[in-house]
Amino acid sequence: MRICDKLPQGVDAAIISDEKNRQYLTGVRSSAGTVVVTRDETYLIIDFRYIEMARQTAVDCQVLLQGRLYQQIGELFAAHGVKTWGLCDSLTDLAQLRRYQKQLPGAFLEDSGVDGLLQQLRMCKSEVELGFIRQAQQLTDDCFSYITQRIAAGRSERDIALDMEFYIRRQGAQGVSFDFIVVSGENSSKPHGVPGERLVQPGDFITMDFGCTVGGYCSDMTRTVAVGQVTDEQRQVYDIVLQANRLGVQLAGPGVACDWVDAQVRALIADAGYGECFGHGLGHGVGLDIHEEPAFSPSCGTLTRPGMVITVEPGIYLPGRFGVRIEDMVVITRDGCTDITRSPKELLAL
Amino acid sequence: MRICDKLPQGVDAAIISDEKNRQYLTGVRSSAGTVVVTRDETYLIIDFRYIEMARQTAVDCQVLLQGRLYQQIGELFAAHGVKTWGLCDSLTDLAQLRRYQKQLPGAFLEDSGVDGLLQQLRMCKSEVELGFIRQAQQLTDDCFSYITQRIAAGRSERDIALDMEFYIRRQGAQGVSFDFIVVSGENSSKPHGVPGERLVQPGDFITMDFGCTVGGYCSDMTRTVAVGQVTDEQRQVYDIVLQANRLGVQLAGPGVACDWVDAQVRALIADAGYGECFGHGLGHGVGLDIHEEPAFSPSCGTLTRPGMVITVEPGIYLPGRFGVRIEDMVVITRDGCTDITRSPKELLAL
Repeated sequence: MRICDKLPQGVDAAIISDEKNRQYLTGVRSSAGTVVVTRDETYLIIDFRYIEMARQTAVDCQVLLQGRLYQQIGELFAAHGVKTWGLCDSLTDLAQLRRYQKQLPGAFLEDSGVDGLLQQLRMCKSEVELGFIRQAQQLTDDCFSYITQRIAAGRSERDIALDMEFYIRRQGAQGVSFDFIVVSGENSSKPHGVPGERLVQPGDFITMDFGCTVGGYCSDMTRTVAVGQVTDEQRQVYDIVLQANRLGVQLAGPGVACDWVDAQVRALIADAGYGECFGHGLGHGVGLDIHEEPAFSPSCGTLTRPGMVITVEPGIYLPGRFGVRIEDMVVITRDGCTDITRSPKELLAL
Repeated sequence: MRICDKLPQGVDAAIISDEKNRQYLTGVRSSAGTVVVTRDETYLIIDFRYIEMARQTAVDCQVLLQGRLYQQIGELFAAHGVKTWGLCDSLTDLAQLRRYQKQLPGAFLEDSGVDGLLQQLRMCKSEVELGFIRQAQQLTDDCFSYITQRIAAGRSERDIALDMEFYIRRQGAQGVSFDFIVVSGENSSKPHGVPGERLVQPGDFITMDFGCTVGGYCSDMTRTVAVGQVTDEQRQVYDIVLQANRLGVQLAGPGVACDWVDAQVRALIADAGYGECFGHGLGHGVGLDIHEEPAFSPSCGTLTRPGMVITVEPGIYLPGRFGVRIEDMVVITRDGCTDITRSPKELLAL
């Protein structure tokens, strides 16, 4: 990613040291390294363990073997006439900043806007990034298909969650996007419950929220399924959430305000009488991080643009009784969006 | 942990917000929350999701339901006459600090010593902490026993690593301490190689470095095993590493300097002619973090004390050929140490 000409006004250079932004800016995946962005050139300074791999895979940057790091950065600053520099304030700890300040020339700019610049750039995905996300979602859909044939009364939430994770990793996922949520029966009313020893029972709803990573990029999906016969009320709630999910996907086109999409879907749920039972945002951006900008939430006024990847995940939670959530990932396109979650959404009774 | 009377001089209060130090100070395991330590009392401010659990499990602190966080901290500061406050500089990002500084009364002290205080306190483990570490190590030993019956020529490193991880988690581990290292043949010369598609072959050494977590606490062990017949040179190198490991465990008693232990073991390896082939420290502390203070390394002059948990992990690596590492965890006691790694150390030929 060519970032040089996008540095915030007054910022001569940026130092980026977190893993994900490092990968984003250079294409290189490593557990260590420092990116220095000047107005002319981007550099990746990386140690001997990764140097060979970095030289083969780096894009849009010069790769330098790490020696005396701070001296090297200082020399780059001198070569490019850097007088002011910033970094990602939300990803740099105070002790690290102190080392930079002590050993680097030039003036550190607090709140330089580098954080926000990277968040902005990362919102719209390239075709390469979308390829990884689609691969991750394909594995995730496969996992749903796998587990729906294996869920049965008597299995514990934790057992099901491990089965799902092991399957998805055996299939080749690099890792999981987050600890899988598998909650059943009355536990399914907890949007972020932890899979426990509860055994699945006939009449339960089971909500599964899960995803994996491929090439560093995340997938994220949720489905609620029924075990055996469920009540009319459970079906009604499910249908409302399904309608809400479909409305969200339908409205997710380019050039709409994120908070407007959230509001429309929220209104549908409220009109159905469950307004108090949907306590989280409608969705969030997904990429190198499982939660990125923008969000379909009441507090995000960002206008959608092609290439954004955002979840649509309405839910209704009846405390102590049951809950339902249906989550797809959509890619905003020029004339609408593509729902890249392929698993069926109609209520499955297992 | 009563920390109030240990705050560094001149520091009236500390704000701790990282997960591990929060657990250490309060006994409460949660993904969110803020600990405020004053000279009189420690408070855990935690949101509604965790409040019930926190009230049941908190030790040595008062639990407060989170409302307007900064206002609540400000009120605690006022009640306790706090004029100066610090935090863990290595665990707090600049954006978070800015929010604290903007909204809290009193003076922020940079480099207050709160970081170092927590590192110091956490070095010596309580019986409760040791109990978790022993449980984690027991599962890790079980995993070694499990996998040695299943390693065979033709299996890939990645396949073996997944098998080990899935076993240990099915047995009840909370999670893994780190991504397992399983490296074979010429890959075993990489101290921190990543398990790949290489298939194990007869004559290989396989090095496995792995561990799990129980109650938030980590275990860590390494064994190198042989597949079929290995050469005399491989056996010789193995024996040197085994002697080095045994010497380290023997020297790890109370009141010795960590760098002295490292130096003695390093000398043994150098005397055997492999001084250049042992490029890392002899060991590191283990606890809530997989790497903690103190370290058996050339740069750590800390004197050992009862309750410290430190690894002893000498290795010899012959680039492009093979490597050996044998790692145990020892608990320093009043009159020596206890090696809590129970797996055999003699060369296993599978």
